[in-house]
Amino acid sequence: MKNTFGQSVSLTIFGESHGGQIGAVLDGLAPGIPVDEDFIAHQLTLRRPKGRISTARQEEDPFVIASGVFEGKTTGTPIMITIPNQNTKSKDYSATRFLARPGHADYTANCKYHGFEDYRGGGHFSGRITAGLVAAGAIAIAALKNKGIRIGTHISRCAGVSDRPFGDVEADIAALNEMTFAVLDTERAAGMEMKITQAAESGDSVGGILETVVVGMPAGVGEPWFDTVESVLSHILFSIPGIKGVQFGMGFAMADRYGSEANDNFRMDGEKIVTVTNNNGGINGGITNGMPLQFSCAVKPTPSIYKEQDTVNFAKKENAPLQIAGRHDPAIIHRARVVVDSAVAIALCDLLAQRYGTDFLA
Amino acid sequence: MKNTFGQSVSLTIFGESHGGQIGAVLDGLAPGIPVDEDFIAHQLTLRRPKGRISTARQEEDPFVIASGVFEGKTTGTPIMITIPNQNTKSKDYSATRFLARPGHADYTANCKYHGFEDYRGGGHFSGRITAGLVAAGAIAIAALKNKGIRIGTHISRCAGVSDRPFGDVEADIAALNEMTFAVLDTERAAGMEMKITQAAESGDSVGGILETVVVGMPAGVGEPWFDTVESVLSHILFSIPGIKGVQFGMGFAMADRYGSEANDNFRMDGEKIVTVTNNNGGINGGITNGMPLQFSCAVKPTPSIYKEQDTVNFAKKENAPLQIAGRHDPAIIHRARVVVDSAVAIALCDLLAQRYGTDFLA
Amino acid sequence: MKNTFGQSVSLTIFGESHGGQIGAVLDGLAPGIPVDEDFIAHQLTLRRPKGRISTARQEEDPFVIASGVFEGKTTGTPIMITIPNQNTKSKDYSATRFLARPGHADYTANCKYHGFEDYRGGGHFSGRITAGLVAAGAIAIAALKNKGIRIGTHISRCAGVSDRPFGDVEADIAALNEMTFAVLDTERAAGMEMKITQAAESGDSVGGILETVVVGMPAGVGEPWFDTVESVLSHILFSIPGIKGVQFGMGFAMADRYGSEANDNFRMDGEKIVTVTNNNGGINGGITNGMPLQFSCAVKPTPSIYKEQDTVNFAKKENAPLQIAGRHDPAIIHRARVVVDSAVAIALCDLLAQRYGTDFLA
Amino acid sequence: MKNTFGQSVSLTIFGESHGGQIGAVLDGLAPGIPVDEDFIAHQLTLRRPKGRISTARQEEDPFVIASGVFEGKTTGTPIMITIPNQNTKSKDYSATRFLARPGHADYTANCKYHGFEDYRGGGHFSGRITAGLVAAGAIAIAALKNKGIRIGTHISRCAGVSDRPFGDVEADIAALNEMTFAVLDTERAAGMEMKITQAAESGDSVGGILETVVVGMPAGVGEPWFDTVESVLSHILFSIPGIKGVQFGMGFAMADRYGSEANDNFRMDGEKIVTVTNNNGGINGGITNGMPLQFSCAVKPTPSIYKEQDTVNFAKKENAPLQIAGRHDPAIIHRARVVVDSAVAIALCDLLAQRYGTDFLA
Repeated sequence: MKNTFGQSVSLTIFGESHGGQIGAVLDGLAPGIPVDEDFIAHQLTLRRPKGRISTARQEEDPFVIASGVFEGKTTGTPIMITIPNQNTKSKDYSATRFLARPGHADYTANCKYHGFEDYRGGGHFSGRITAGLVAAGAIAIAALKNKGIRIGTHISRCAGVSDRPFGDVEADIAALNEMTFAVLDTERAAGMEMKITQAAESGDSVGGILETVVVGMPAGVGEPWFDTVESVLSHILFSIPGIKGVQFGMGFAMADRYGSEANDNFRMDGEKIVTVTNNNGGINGGITNGMPLQFSCAVKPTPSIYKEQDTVNFAKKENAPLQIAGRHDPAIIHRARVVVDSAVAIALCDLLAQRYGTDFLA
Repeated sequence: MKNTFGQSVSLTIFGESHGGQIGAVLDGLAPGIPVDEDFIAHQLTLRRPKGRISTARQEEDPFVIASGVFEGKTTGTPIMITIPNQNTKSKDYSATRFLARPGHADYTANCKYHGFEDYRGGGHFSGRITAGLVAAGAIAIAALKNKGIRIGTHISRCAGVSDRPFGDVEADIAALNEMTFAVLDTERAAGMEMKITQAAESGDSVGGILETVVVGMPAGVGEPWFDTVESVLSHILFSIPGIKGVQFGMGFAMADRYGSEANDNFRMDGEKIVTVTNNNGGINGGITNGMPLQFSCAVKPTPSIYKEQDTVNFAKKENAPLQIAGRHDPAIIHRARVVVDSAVAIALCDLLAQRYGTDFLA
Repeated sequence: MKNTFGQSVSLTIFGESHGGQIGAVLDGLAPGIPVDEDFIAHQLTLRRPKGRISTARQEEDPFVIASGVFEGKTTGTPIMITIPNQNTKSKDYSATRFLARPGHADYTANCKYHGFEDYRGGGHFSGRITAGLVAAGAIAIAALKNKGIRIGTHISRCAGVSDRPFGDVEADIAALNEMTFAVLDTERAAGMEMKITQAAESGDSVGGILETVVVGMPAGVGEPWFDTVESVLSHILFSIPGIKGVQFGMGFAMADRYGSEANDNFRMDGEKIVTVTNNNGGINGGITNGMPLQFSCAVKPTPSIYKEQDTVNFAKKENAPLQIAGRHDPAIIHRARVVVDSAVAIALCDLLAQRYGTDFLA
Repeated sequence: MKNTFGQSVSLTIFGESHGGQIGAVLDGLAPGIPVDEDFIAHQLTLRRPKGRISTARQEEDPFVIASGVFEGKTTGTPIMITIPNQNTKSKDYSATRFLARPGHADYTANCKYHGFEDYRGGGHFSGRITAGLVAAGAIAIAALKNKGIRIGTHISRCAGVSDRPFGDVEADIAALNEMTFAVLDTERAAGMEMKITQAAESGDSVGGILETVVVGMPAGVGEPWFDTVESVLSHILFSIPGIKGVQFGMGFAMADRYGSEANDNFRMDGEKIVTVTNNNGGINGGITNGMPLQFSCAVKPTPSIYKEQDTVNFAKKENAPLQIAGRHDPAIIHRARVVVDSAVAIALCDLLAQRYGTDFLA
């Protein structure tokens, strides 16, 4: 299935950076879930470029819920959300039509779509398409919250600066979801922003790591094979542009630990079974164990940079220099944060609906 | 879909560690692909425990191809491969029936299957189930090889020791596929084996990192959204027991690089478009760019260790000490290698069949 | 998958009869297929109610292609087509909110969606939702035509009057696709229309049978099990409102024949292998044999009738009489025709893309 | 997905008529469902050829449950059932290797599999493959029965003789499930058997109609679009060899009725909402309404007949006469009955698990 994710709850996205409309169809959510348009707008704001450290394309996202919501609640039928494109400067891109921007999909799009792709601004590959995912994800996030499942993501590392680790996760999640630049320690946030500004000034860009925690997931969700929680989450996370790594719990650091250090011992916490540590990120054998889900995503530096780069003209099949113009972000990690939260919410809604039935989130 | 992976080419696996048979159904492969039973046996040998650094359970895997192969070639209809279980010592496990082994799926299985799961030896969660995946994967690996697509995986890090990076990938792949302990640098292999032996002697276990390279993939395979090559590969990789991280190209290291360092510049190599570096692991915008696919998997230390651990009896809901007996590997990374190759082969066959049709691999 | 059909080529539909917009997302079509908006408009016209024998709701369908088409051709990425709802008279329905209209989905919608469904005019169950399917189907029909695959459907029976059988199928298909009331024999068409008018005058409605033929399909498409051509076509056909039977070739009449009468003997037609008869409707063992696909759909009489009916108020759980007001068709079969053609086209595009790859229709 | 059906509960089948083993993998059933091997054997007996009116190939079906059942109950993980092939007379078929048997899949298999198909006895297209479906279906039938959902199918018409319609459905279902030749009226059964014998004596074969009723399904199951109950059931029914028509409720007869005759009025039956008639077969708008599901399947006459037929040699591309030898059924409808029940059970388990979660059938 191409631009559709999920089985019981599914998301289909459509649109191109400079086309008429972008958007998403979210299907299979339980009926009766309240839909708060202000919260959708809030989430879209978190994704929108902000201030000096983002592209100058400052676009409102005047979304329309075209179906699937009636009297303020989900009906249980497909929710189509559409966002018209505005303020598109298509002429910026025509000059570089056949120049493969390094790190971008121009060349691979051409290999796949044989030149029929809408090349303007990255077309269907543009990060802009994530706006539809964020709008749909906002409904999923709210549905999960009604069931006590909350998601929070911070920039755990950016441009060589690390945030503090999660502490009181409930409080941290609450705080993060109000921030535009989601860093738990304000001082380090300032450090990151300074680094981003410096990179921007030298025509360059930076990447980072997003760390996510999810509290409130019941134990027993996921499958032992193929649809493990790790598999399902990584599937949707790796379709977010720029994500090149996903790790759960201690992740790659486990490679250097002994089993006695990496195992999470169990213990009783009153009537509840918990683990003492959470190196496995809340997942054993592909199935949730009731502890917080915890995982990180590596976000590569924005590939659009202003330094001249060597590349090819893939129509002429010859080497060519490339000087990117237009409006671009020196970092996308702070904007990618809400995309991660949204993607995770949709995947979890799907896993829960498969496990407990389509009414579960109602 | 639970124990089934893939759309055009699909794999279904079945079985439990101490049940009657384990195995797999591989469906959708093109007709006319030669099936070499010796190669399947060879691949199963790579997965089987070997020598001091592995469990004492030394089991032959006398597989039977029950369908889908006729006169030595695939028919295009489902290939069922079954492997009877032998040498099962079920009584080893009954004493610890309700003790949640840390890092294992005992507790989560109980949450999901309500006590009806076959608990013996990890049941359906056992690494033994990967034998079916490896047998099916051997056919996929051979089919890809016929099309010039070759896969190689080495232990790039184990117990704190690093292998050398890939050099001449064609030669490295050829060498790796003959090795039982797949390390490119023999001296470092010895270092790793020593560390594993030491861990075993102290009743502990170690993890590591597997790095894979795939050469020969055509450009233009994969989807921009949801079924990106990263999404599809990580989906199947994260269902291999013990894998807790997957990264493509430079992966998490990208978080600390500038865009100008991370971007892969394009250049002409004769008539062919190539990239100067391969930090994106052969994938741009979710689609292959014709460069080698390159990615790594973090493998956690084997959770079965002989040191006493604190845990709970989840039937009685009380704390309990656990002393694991039985036969266990101090490391599985060398055995997981061929599982990774097999999983990757099946996923690539699926992506290629979706792109080019069901006859493509014939 | 709920409101999504298909694997390699997929269709997602959304919308409610009296909501903001209805429409569809068509994904996976090859890039480079010309998109003719006039033809889409033409197809939508065939679906729109016409004259005395249809509802008085005479709505223009000013569709917008919001994505996936660039410079007049498909890009290969999702095509979203949206059609705003206009001229909705929602107040007609509020009085009968909890009265289950016989033959309609009011009661079952309530069982499934617990009262949160948009009940106005049938909501998401309305035949109006097929407009999105028809708009998307128009693109699929044109794509198939470019490959020499043509679809034609006639009303083979309506209100007790039978049309003549298919004769020269090429000519018949061409003629049918220009007709508003698709009947091969004009005299019998007049007979049907008279019967429909009479039913309308007595506050009643009629049903009928649609027979479809598809020429130009290559041999060897479809699967022996589960995704037989019959399975895939019937799957999408049975989701068209009002269709209660699907039969291939001789269908139910085969029940009274001997094998020697029902078998289709093969013979050479020059270099081509053909069958003498086509009782199996162009499909053997679930796979196309190169003969025309031929099948029929039973369409039930429109359930909205003006005669008083006995029903229940499902909120109050009591018996209640029902007098339907509003605008309703005494027959929908002539409008369902183009919906059948569209559904068939989408299913065939999917089967072909699975078989021959995603570029096949380009 | 090729030889796999279903989403939450899925079935994968494998095998060829004259290969090593046939069988099925049933996945996603709830844990804790009792598995009665005697009942599986009983169901396989109903599928096996019996007496004069069936082929002389009288094969025991010594199935083995290889996984997914532990201590007599489902574990919730894949149930693999394998049935070794015995008593295969492969030499019967070699002479006719390239002769396309009319009504069979020999030619279409060749178009799809390019000659690599196992041609012996129909290979993967053989009705024998349904034994795996029946074995898996037996578990699904028992699971449904535990929830009060019961399925019964009778031969409503065969060789021009009609059975009486369903009367007391509960009693009829109970009676049918004990019969080898499932006809409600014994006298008419005798008439059918006489007709079959006559057809056999003249080297010919007969077809018929199977009518199925399902009681106990809750209201509110199914989807408005694409996965309507009709769509899902017809999808699996049309993959049973020989089925060429499926109709729900009044089906094709609706084409000649007025809306006022076809609509099912609702009324209260105590606290329960029921319909007065059941012309819609228990389904409104694609969703169950709580009334019995009722539908019929047209079964074509067995294509293997002893009369000489005209056909082609598709290797030589020339006309050729065909005289079929070997063992063949003059009718398969009485054997197809249990295949229909099994297929329906699997599809309903899937629909229920999607609706109510994976524990629903436990």
